[in-house]
Amino acid sequence: MVKQKIAYLGPAGTFAEQATITYNPNSELLPRPSIPAVAQAVEAEEADEGVVPIENSLQGSVTFTLDLLIHDSTLLIRNELVLPVHHNLLSAPGTSSDRIIVIYSHPQALAQCREYLLKRHPNADLVASLSTAGAVEELERHGDNTAAIGNLRAAKLYGAEILERNIEDNSNNVTRFVVLGKTRQEKTGNDKTSICFWFDTDSPGLLFSIMQTFAELDINLAKVESRPTRESLGRYIFLIDFDGHREDKKVKKALAKMESQVSILKVFGSYPKATTLA
Amino acid sequence: MVKQKIAYLGPAGTFAEQATITYNPNSELLPRPSIPAVAQAVEAEEADEGVVPIENSLQGSVTFTLDLLIHDSTLLIRNELVLPVHHNLLSAPGTSSDRIIVIYSHPQALAQCREYLLKRHPNADLVASLSTAGAVEELERHGDNTAAIGNLRAAKLYGAEILERNIEDNSNNVTRFVVLGKTRQEKTGNDKTSICFWFDTDSPGLLFSIMQTFAELDINLAKVESRPTRESLGRYIFLIDFDGHREDKKVKKALAKMESQVSILKVFGSYPKATTLA
Repeated sequence: MVKQKIAYLGPAGTFAEQATITYNPNSELLPRPSIPAVAQAVEAEEADEGVVPIENSLQGSVTFTLDLLIHDSTLLIRNELVLPVHHNLLSAPGTSSDRIIVIYSHPQALAQCREYLLKRHPNADLVASLSTAGAVEELERHGDNTAAIGNLRAAKLYGAEILERNIEDNSNNVTRFVVLGKTRQEKTGNDKTSICFWFDTDSPGLLFSIMQTFAELDINLAKVESRPTRESLGRYIFLIDFDGHREDKKVKKALAKMESQVSILKVFGSYPKATTLA
Repeated sequence: MVKQKIAYLGPAGTFAEQATITYNPNSELLPRPSIPAVAQAVEAEEADEGVVPIENSLQGSVTFTLDLLIHDSTLLIRNELVLPVHHNLLSAPGTSSDRIIVIYSHPQALAQCREYLLKRHPNADLVASLSTAGAVEELERHGDNTAAIGNLRAAKLYGAEILERNIEDNSNNVTRFVVLGKTRQEKTGNDKTSICFWFDTDSPGLLFSIMQTFAELDINLAKVESRPTRESLGRYIFLIDFDGHREDKKVKKALAKMESQVSILKVFGSYPKATTLA
């Protein structure tokens, strides 16, 4: 059997890799250095699918991914993956927790463990790295008194020791990833659809009329978000996630009605609703 | 006369400083290193007002500022300032444009001049700095073959030479700043109000019912935005900007009705609508 090739936001040991492995444990993993590079790998058919983060429960939307879907790609969302984010204090083997004087990680991970760090390592220097995986990878080079914040997958990959588990301040830390591909996803009966749209004229009643269309058809809106059109301040592109598949009768009706209400309508895809990954 | 003290997102030579000077040319300027530090200066009454970016026409909302207003501050928005963003190629005096091999700037400024750089300086190394002003300040130290991307105010402050003006790729580049203070702004007759609200229960019909309230009272919505509640994925705080002042009869009615519809309602302030600064 030919293995499915999946590009993801790398390097090895990132949360995107963790999500990808849980999504398809038998795939060939292709790490890519940026969100556009993941999309590029799928567009060029080096990879069958690509996994990128789209939203975090504490930080909000990943605007790079939204803007890619809006402006720069015709790829479709084929799945969503919801992964709990746990951070761990890691070190080179044999390091004592008392002697840590420098802690490396991605600025977001450092921020998400701020209270823990203040309480347990108030005197440690916090140093930024490009990814949590990168911080863990470099542990060996930094010697005895250093630690890194990263996930368990990175610890395993780079042979690091786990000094303390689940050091994140807020336990509601969850990241949602989307799986991008070239083909439409089939209907499962428990689906979600993501779209974006905008208007040529700037009438505030227009967004309301769109929401009315969904309300009248009793379609549940899961998310409403706005992004700039890049044309002028105060003009927005709206992104909506709603329950249902684009082949559902109600959804077809809503999309058909919208076609006459908006200037541009782009369906990012219909895909099965996620259950949170372990 | 005692000068008004205004804190802003520094250092000297940033776009925030430019906006502050245009807003009040006779104020005492207090640069602060971060958005929370600007708010802190106003809260501690070191400054009368504080100026922070809230939105850019290409990049979208400044989520740090939104989250500060939602979660971490009781300061009010007293004014909005809209500033066109022009980037310039700057160097130490006497440098020839042909000999530039390194260009420093903030990553966003480098990104906003990407096409220009590819066309005119395809072989230059692009190096990130913490702010455009910081890049310009350091020009002298870097010697002959370096340039920086920054604004004209930074060029003047740090004695840099202007090699080329307005090198930004997209001429629709505009940043909106808000002026934060402790007191309410008076009604001018051409005002805007910013609020946020959220719901205890997760009913998708609720946002629609809020929009209906505004539609029925014929209140123009200028912006709809969502941010995570930080409690669970899929639960959002909504931010709305609309036309009118909180002392207007129609607006009072809408806010009173909302009180019964939402769990939390926070009015960030009513303030005069901006005209774009020169």
